[in-house]
Amino acid sequence: MSSLPDRVTITEVGPRDGLQNEALIVDTEHKVEFVRRLSGCGFTRIEACSFVHPKAIAQMADAQAVMSALPRRENVTYIALVPNEVGARNAIAANAQEIATVVSASESHNRANVNRSVEESLAGVGRVAGLAAEAGLPWAGYIATSFGCPYEGEVPVQHVIAISRRLRELGSYAISLGDTIGAANPRQVSAVVRAFQDALPGTPLRLHFHDTRGTGLANVLAALIEGVDSFDSSVGGLGGCPYAPGAAGNVATEDLVYMLERMGIETGVDLAKLIEVARWAENLVGRSLPGRVKDAADSVLRGKA
Amino acid sequence: MSSLPDRVTITEVGPRDGLQNEALIVDTEHKVEFVRRLSGCGFTRIEACSFVHPKAIAQMADAQAVMSALPRRENVTYIALVPNEVGARNAIAANAQEIATVVSASESHNRANVNRSVEESLAGVGRVAGLAAEAGLPWAGYIATSFGCPYEGEVPVQHVIAISRRLRELGSYAISLGDTIGAANPRQVSAVVRAFQDALPGTPLRLHFHDTRGTGLANVLAALIEGVDSFDSSVGGLGGCPYAPGAAGNVATEDLVYMLERMGIETGVDLAKLIEVARWAENLVGRSLPGRVKDAADSVLRGKA
Repeated sequence: MSSLPDRVTITEVGPRDGLQNEALIVDTEHKVEFVRRLSGCGFTRIEACSFVHPKAIAQMADAQAVMSALPRRENVTYIALVPNEVGARNAIAANAQEIATVVSASESHNRANVNRSVEESLAGVGRVAGLAAEAGLPWAGYIATSFGCPYEGEVPVQHVIAISRRLRELGSYAISLGDTIGAANPRQVSAVVRAFQDALPGTPLRLHFHDTRGTGLANVLAALIEGVDSFDSSVGGLGGCPYAPGAAGNVATEDLVYMLERMGIETGVDLAKLIEVARWAENLVGRSLPGRVKDAADSVLRGKA
Repeated sequence: MSSLPDRVTITEVGPRDGLQNEALIVDTEHKVEFVRRLSGCGFTRIEACSFVHPKAIAQMADAQAVMSALPRRENVTYIALVPNEVGARNAIAANAQEIATVVSASESHNRANVNRSVEESLAGVGRVAGLAAEAGLPWAGYIATSFGCPYEGEVPVQHVIAISRRLRELGSYAISLGDTIGAANPRQVSAVVRAFQDALPGTPLRLHFHDTRGTGLANVLAALIEGVDSFDSSVGGLGGCPYAPGAAGNVATEDLVYMLERMGIETGVDLAKLIEVARWAENLVGRSLPGRVKDAADSVLRGKA
């Protein structure tokens, strides 16, 4: 473990992937406050909202208001997820600083998610890419179900690579591979990352693990060993749905930061402040969140790097 | 990750390390039923109880009754934790099949735990070792706070090695290093395991991770990479105390089994049956347990090896 990255970039996705799966609707003011508190912890990348149709996800109905209201800070990029051209136009109008698109690695999940084939989704990504280019915004493609599909089970790594290649051709500056259902295991992560690096050498890779089965940080470790230095996570492990106990959230950011900093890997995030935000987020969504570090009783080793 | 062990032995510690930290007192009949259900999942090693003074841990007051009542099975070893000679005599009288002793790697924790110095505890272990030898029973030494102490913080690896050496000299057939407060990180695990292997080549090593900060399975992965093939865990992540939120339980056995089996590493444990026992254990202790796999909504990839 001598050749791990010295520094890791975390994209905090709590306000988007986290909140969009929470049952309690948070008002615009508190969403803005949430992002403001997060940027105070030292994050340089925050996925702030999704410009999805309000009928699809009520929690994101005020995306434009949220994105417009966020106080711009040097060194903080606010990212908007967009599902289509309408969303892209709205995100650009609201001064989003980066755009994220999504397509699934498995046909069944893509169909269930957006009622399109993967091919149709990629055509849509192409149109969004055009708008982003016009606006001079960077964009990155996110590939859901890259490590397993709730309908199809195993997802062949060749599908993931083929879609990654297409996204790169369309202009994606980085690729984010998502373990949407939290079914990945470390050996698989290692194999997928190696295949990606072989097929698309030099392409910035980000990984997005949900922690449905407790393997999130082990999967991060497997990726670190392969040299990956960019991860998504959500404060508190926000996400999932209290009414569907198995739909678990992302890896909890404070647990990720704890592990990395204790390993001597810099994140630029202030863990003590982040723990405060995690507790604040529990009030925000009206339930206790699964992240562990915030509940650790003995603090002797908590914040030590 | 090509040189990982093909097979891992799990010591299920739920009935001991798990229950002894639960607030709700479980009656003898249900403790026996718990162990019976666990052995039905395929575990070959179950830490069944602790022969500690009832005034110290009320939950373990019926250790003798539990150990005596357990139906003996081929291929299942029932382990008794013993703190001293009285405990050892009682465990032997109750037909325990293996004995575990504990000493902390840090003076302050050992003092807080048993009001003795580490040296005094090692002398006590020596006397227990004598009784085990007389009875023809194998015993293994467990070293608490091997990866961090709630009072002292960092624990020098030389202390851990020095105590391991002493335990081997006293006749311990294996050493179990415990992350009692769940503060270990993967890089540290890797370093401690290497130091252990260098200092005591060929000595069977077991690792015991609590999951206080969510790093339990990542620490398991780090150890697997160094060749460790024996781990403690508790079903459901049982342990900790509902009235002291930070005192978290062991790594959840079903999450460990899920990860290992999905990595192609055999455990001999039936995951579907184990998930049933995890849910049963939630009723047993009257609270929901932190293990994740048992709550995963989509079962497509759940039990697949």
